[in-house]
Amino acid sequence: MATAQRMVVIGGNAAGMSAASQARRLKRPGELEIVALERGGYASYSACGIPYWIGGDVAAAGDLIARTPEQHRERDIDLRLHTEVTELDPDGCRVRVRDGGGTGQWLGYDHLVIATGARPLRPDLPGIDAPGVHGVQTMDDGRSLLEALERTGTASTRRRAVVVGAGYIGVEMAEALIRRGHRVTVLDRAQEPMTTLDPDMGRLVREAMCRMGIETVTGTAVTAVRTGADGRVRAVATEDAEYEADLVVLGLGVRPETGLARDAGLPLGESGGLLTDLAMRVRGRENVWAGGDCVEVLDLVSGLDRHIALGTHANKHGQVIGTNIGGGYATFPGVVGTAVSKVCDLEIARTGLLESQARSAGLRFVTATIESTSRAGYYPGAAPMRVKMLAEHRTGRLLGVQIVGREGAGKRVDVAAVALSASMTVEQMTFLDLGYAPPFSPLWDPVLVAARKATAAVRRAGTH
Amino acid sequence: MATAQRMVVIGGNAAGMSAASQARRLKRPGELEIVALERGGYASYSACGIPYWIGGDVAAAGDLIARTPEQHRERDIDLRLHTEVTELDPDGCRVRVRDGGGTGQWLGYDHLVIATGARPLRPDLPGIDAPGVHGVQTMDDGRSLLEALERTGTASTRRRAVVVGAGYIGVEMAEALIRRGHRVTVLDRAQEPMTTLDPDMGRLVREAMCRMGIETVTGTAVTAVRTGADGRVRAVATEDAEYEADLVVLGLGVRPETGLARDAGLPLGESGGLLTDLAMRVRGRENVWAGGDCVEVLDLVSGLDRHIALGTHANKHGQVIGTNIGGGYATFPGVVGTAVSKVCDLEIARTGLLESQARSAGLRFVTATIESTSRAGYYPGAAPMRVKMLAEHRTGRLLGVQIVGREGAGKRVDVAAVALSASMTVEQMTFLDLGYAPPFSPLWDPVLVAARKATAAVRRAGTH
Repeated sequence: MATAQRMVVIGGNAAGMSAASQARRLKRPGELEIVALERGGYASYSACGIPYWIGGDVAAAGDLIARTPEQHRERDIDLRLHTEVTELDPDGCRVRVRDGGGTGQWLGYDHLVIATGARPLRPDLPGIDAPGVHGVQTMDDGRSLLEALERTGTASTRRRAVVVGAGYIGVEMAEALIRRGHRVTVLDRAQEPMTTLDPDMGRLVREAMCRMGIETVTGTAVTAVRTGADGRVRAVATEDAEYEADLVVLGLGVRPETGLARDAGLPLGESGGLLTDLAMRVRGRENVWAGGDCVEVLDLVSGLDRHIALGTHANKHGQVIGTNIGGGYATFPGVVGTAVSKVCDLEIARTGLLESQARSAGLRFVTATIESTSRAGYYPGAAPMRVKMLAEHRTGRLLGVQIVGREGAGKRVDVAAVALSASMTVEQMTFLDLGYAPPFSPLWDPVLVAARKATAAVRRAGTH
Repeated sequence: MATAQRMVVIGGNAAGMSAASQARRLKRPGELEIVALERGGYASYSACGIPYWIGGDVAAAGDLIARTPEQHRERDIDLRLHTEVTELDPDGCRVRVRDGGGTGQWLGYDHLVIATGARPLRPDLPGIDAPGVHGVQTMDDGRSLLEALERTGTASTRRRAVVVGAGYIGVEMAEALIRRGHRVTVLDRAQEPMTTLDPDMGRLVREAMCRMGIETVTGTAVTAVRTGADGRVRAVATEDAEYEADLVVLGLGVRPETGLARDAGLPLGESGGLLTDLAMRVRGRENVWAGGDCVEVLDLVSGLDRHIALGTHANKHGQVIGTNIGGGYATFPGVVGTAVSKVCDLEIARTGLLESQARSAGLRFVTATIESTSRAGYYPGAAPMRVKMLAEHRTGRLLGVQIVGREGAGKRVDVAAVALSASMTVEQMTFLDLGYAPPFSPLWDPVLVAARKATAAVRRAGTH
């Protein structure tokens, strides 16, 4: 009988545990031993759900856990929590593992999966490590913030929270803290919140946030976190002003967690993410795989590699890696840059390229922006939405779509996401056979209205 | 100065008036005279909105009117209401027009647009013309039904309504009548309601309708409408039973209104709809155009011509016809058979082919059906939905999708509609970059889960 091969997974979350689960579906324990090493105390949870747990939409931390460690172990996946990998030796096919003190033991592998995720940006500012400054990246972060909220919840005065960063996490946390009864200020260095949108669309988000009572201060950089006599956070200082704070939440985005990979000489892209082939194998390595927030992915619209930290991609990467290690065949074809989010009842979505991204990719383009409604104008609940579309000059190829609106706006971006995958032109999109009935859409779906206008813009520009 | 050409439009609704408006955008009155002839008393209204007007979601008939006759006339479109065309003479380039008594006058044209719409099926049954039996095809139908409801609304006992036909119109009218406080029975000859779905999906609709308190009796044919001593409707009889009714609504579907076209020898398809080329020109005729509910359209999935009466297609046809008559260039590429509807909070959607349609088109296929939710399972309001997918044997090409669920289910069909237009395989769909965040979708969107399962089914069947 042949000895079982060993698959070692670094990182017990979306990409890592999907890879482990999928490989286990294809290979019995006698064929493949699977060891998953997780530095923290939780595995297989929805990090994207943390803001909703904080906000109270999700009652218990346990609801965010897709599969418990026991469930993994029952399926013969040797998941080890609080176990850190301190060194990779890809030439020697081994990793150094520390589960307590000391420098740790070497563990050999036949297949290595690097799924180390991303780490939140934490600027090097005075006071940044003071009690009362919270990240929201991990379950432990979430629990700590929730405990802080519950403590302050008994205070008789309304507490103040400052959120640093107005990206997805920032606006989601603003909503969560409003729901927890805080007065909330969001600070961002950019001119408009949501730099995943063009500024003209981001402005709509800022205006809506202000109407929701979220103080939104943009175009200003945080310079320090001020602490009181008790050492706890008291305010956040910017270049121009100081904002009182009982609580500070950092939502400044993330970077790939690839220190170990870098030290081991594995190939990294411009953003610091691991570079893989489409089978999710680390470039130049036969038996090292990587997926999730620690890799760069191919952007099918620009042809460039990008870092996009999203649970849905991580899960798909894991699926592909597990299939390939399990002896099957799968590839991850790349992304088109779709993201959807909300702040209270405002839905925010994008796919493809922003104007700035299209320019950096060397593309010439036209834009079209339209206003429409989520349902037939005469139907109750018809809510306004704005759709912006980018199309390539001359060819008319769809390059990107951004949507800001109310209920029913966000997921409309999926139509554009599929059209991008299929390299459709905006003129082709004009006649897409989308679902129509008065409770669901105007006669011309807002995405089609935008496509019509973009088509006209392409034609007007066509002679130049 | 050259004399203006004349464009004559028969039918003052979606297709006809879009064609007129678009042609007017491109040609001045001195270049093109536009005459639109409408048999009824209303033009440019949303027929699809009538059930919601009846149900009270839409307050006034006027809300359904996209553009008033005065607005058309201000744009130099000579819209004539209560004006019927009684004969076409395509060889002589003229139509016979009657606006009062008599046989009418001939009106010559340079371009003719046939947009005569569809007529509702009205089976030849005893009592079918009795007072209290209503259609819901036109504004006049709607007004008459609404007046009947308002009269019965003062009755102290809860009134009974029977809806004959459980298709889109039937279920929408069931909802409307429930909202008007009626006890509602829906009768249909088929085994399940919504024959635009496969029976296994239609069953979900029946079960949901029963839970909503709508008595839904299927597999039974209506044999007569029974009248009382006052001559008014009293009950609807089927082969098996009799259902008391103060009011009967017919929702049996429609057929193309092409009697004039047939008499004039214009080419009709199997369903009786006019056959056109992709520019919406009637086949074999240089200057006769047709669009909307009176034509057949190319089904891009099966390659066959089909009759699909939908306002959104009619509007696009009109846009294409008006562009072409106006000297531009446009084509209507065909449809993929998308439709979405709802009955109370149940959303029902489909695109592509049903099992029976795929079989008649000579296609071999596999199916996959999955259960998922509209949002992340842990997020409030996550509602169950069922997605059924058909994929072609061997090639794995997507053939169709059906969705039944609650809020957020219906418009997900659009992803499949775009994928059908792009001839994607279900395996390609598996990795589509759809918008993900817990309030919007599970980690794998339900459509992707169905695509994964369909991919596995294609592979299993692949060796045969």
